Amino acid sequence: MDPHDNEADTATLEREALGRIIHAFSEYKHTADLDLMIKGRDFSRLKQAHKDLLPHFHAHLRQASQGVQHNHIFLRSMLTQLLEEGPNSSPFLPGALSAAEEYAAGVNGRVLPQDVEKVRYVLKNLMRDWSEEGAAERAASYGRIMQEVESIASRQAPGQVPLSILVPGAGLGRLCADLCSMGHHVLGNEFSFYMLLASAYVLNHSARLHQWTVHPWLHSGCNHFTSASQLRGLAIPDVLPEDLTAPGELGMVAGDFVEVFARPEYQAVFDVVATCFFIDTAHNVIDYLETIVAVLKPGGSWVNLGPLLYHWAEPQEGPDEPNIELSLEEIEAVAGQLGLVMQRRDVVKAPFASNRQSMFESTYTCSFWTMTKGPGS
Amino acid sequence: MDPHDNEADTATLEREALGRIIHAFSEYKHTADLDLMIKGRDFSRLKQAHKDLLPHFHAHLRQASQGVQHNHIFLRSMLTQLLEEGPNSSPFLPGALSAAEEYAAGVNGRVLPQDVEKVRYVLKNLMRDWSEEGAAERAASYGRIMQEVESIASRQAPGQVPLSILVPGAGLGRLCADLCSMGHHVLGNEFSFYMLLASAYVLNHSARLHQWTVHPWLHSGCNHFTSASQLRGLAIPDVLPEDLTAPGELGMVAGDFVEVFARPEYQAVFDVVATCFFIDTAHNVIDYLETIVAVLKPGGSWVNLGPLLYHWAEPQEGPDEPNIELSLEEIEAVAGQLGLVMQRRDVVKAPFASNRQSMFESTYTCSFWTMTKGPGS
Repeated sequence: MDPHDNEADTATLEREALGRIIHAFSEYKHTADLDLMIKGRDFSRLKQAHKDLLPHFHAHLRQASQGVQHNHIFLRSMLTQLLEEGPNSSPFLPGALSAAEEYAAGVNGRVLPQDVEKVRYVLKNLMRDWSEEGAAERAASYGRIMQEVESIASRQAPGQVPLSILVPGAGLGRLCADLCSMGHHVLGNEFSFYMLLASAYVLNHSARLHQWTVHPWLHSGCNHFTSASQLRGLAIPDVLPEDLTAPGELGMVAGDFVEVFARPEYQAVFDVVATCFFIDTAHNVIDYLETIVAVLKPGGSWVNLGPLLYHWAEPQEGPDEPNIELSLEEIEAVAGQLGLVMQRRDVVKAPFASNRQSMFESTYTCSFWTMTKGPGS
Repeated sequence: MDPHDNEADTATLEREALGRIIHAFSEYKHTADLDLMIKGRDFSRLKQAHKDLLPHFHAHLRQASQGVQHNHIFLRSMLTQLLEEGPNSSPFLPGALSAAEEYAAGVNGRVLPQDVEKVRYVLKNLMRDWSEEGAAERAASYGRIMQEVESIASRQAPGQVPLSILVPGAGLGRLCADLCSMGHHVLGNEFSFYMLLASAYVLNHSARLHQWTVHPWLHSGCNHFTSASQLRGLAIPDVLPEDLTAPGELGMVAGDFVEVFARPEYQAVFDVVATCFFIDTAHNVIDYLETIVAVLKPGGSWVNLGPLLYHWAEPQEGPDEPNIELSLEEIEAVAGQLGLVMQRRDVVKAPFASNRQSMFESTYTCSFWTMTKGPGS
């Protein structure tokens, strides 16, 4: 078999995936307006006596529609900047817009429910990473990791700081930017184009504080104390990314963690690997552990915080790879066998993209550890 | 149109729904074994070096298989007792077994994923309602409601106690039984045949303490500190239901809350309506509020505890009814307009069917109130 066939297949699949994601972003307003229309239609089907009990319903829908418009402005600006204008007004991601058009034509313009959810998840992550409301959430996870990195840096010999830090699962980039703000050199890695596009936009194109308003909670009517709380808008960014990072300090590499960091240039080059709500995104977490060992310098540190909500545990579309779900105890045993030495080990509570003003609080009891790469690994 | 056609249609649909549920219970072991087989197959596809890092994997699968067997014993005994032996060895639910066979034939024996989940949800509810491990969860919700009912009873004139209490959304029956144990007369109401069958079995056929062992957590490999914690079995029941209830104190009525309690015999007959994690199961919560007002005696009390995780908020199969999702503030406003008067009002934390030993804790910030039916309602 011609190996080029395989490459061509991969390129086709990647182009299709990118097109599907751009299409989902582009259609955000359309799908959100459709949801509001259904809510309006359901209300119109109530008996008159019930309608009379809810005099503010239409005002609520109008305000929700304004929130959708604010979200749309952010997402639309992002696509315009990254895909249409780009550097020197040429398309930044070659072929992304035509890939989206092709994808849309193949599905008659429809957006799959899971893709609608992923766009809305980006809005919640903007809350987590770039709003003042996210500060408490960030303190409980990024803050702890930063303290630990500070403590590692303080034990280095003079001349060995700044540290070279890898952040797999960089998401919307705040942990990377915060680690840069401490003076370190950080390389982020992210697989999801949803996250890559949004982080590229916030990190590189924020012109001023509180430039955009996002309404991450308006899409669900569940567990709200008040309508106003459901519809509230959050100003982003809460800090200017350029105030956190200096040129050359922050890089971002797209792609699958295990594939990308198998490259020779990444072997034994990082002082620290910092993973936050990341290791449970693996099909096989042992692949991640091996990669972390491989990219660390001897004596380097892996700082991890997160639960074990395995991303692939539920049947879903995706590559046909074997999935395993290990307990914390098993992961620690495997890490030890791979040559990682536990230095500190805690169990801490941390929320993730949680609506603090709502009646539902999802809090993870996270493992939080620092392991070092032993001399023989 | 002949109105009998409609009745015939309804009967056919109900028979089909019952058949589908019995089929899902019957196939529990088959679907669970299939899941374990897939886990074994995935493990066999790992490279040898990774297999060597997980020496206990096959022992884990064998223990999981034993847990499945324990769950199966409970569910199989339940079906045998309620459907096959029944009172006087005649079928208790007429036609249920043949309905299940017909349903199974129509779907080639397959169980839909959502039905598999519902059976597993029954196991988690057995933890909540009938295990020692559920005691803390019950204290946070049933316990608070019981205290409030105690306080209401203490203010009654002599001769007005015991109270007549309705518990809509009775689930596996523990709140009903606990209220009976205080000496009150309780009528439970439940829509789901999953819950109705399991509660009928535990309430009426428990012969001794810790008669069965269930393993509610084995089906997910996520967020476990240890394998042993994932596989742990819980002894049920933690109390003998017959020690909680006396003859004539506890009744259970099947069916849709709004439909059942529209009947003339239920108007203005209850001293207390106690709802726990219930009101968000409505398509239109106003229908529930109106029904609660209607069944309460003048001056009667509605005690409620729960979040607003509207059951129908996500698109799903079900009747084509308009859905509305009101905020807490809106529900309180509507209740006031319907003639309910707020007596006490708190916000309290309460978990629901949550695995306390896991890394994920889902805690609801619940509204907890007592309203009374005003004189003019």
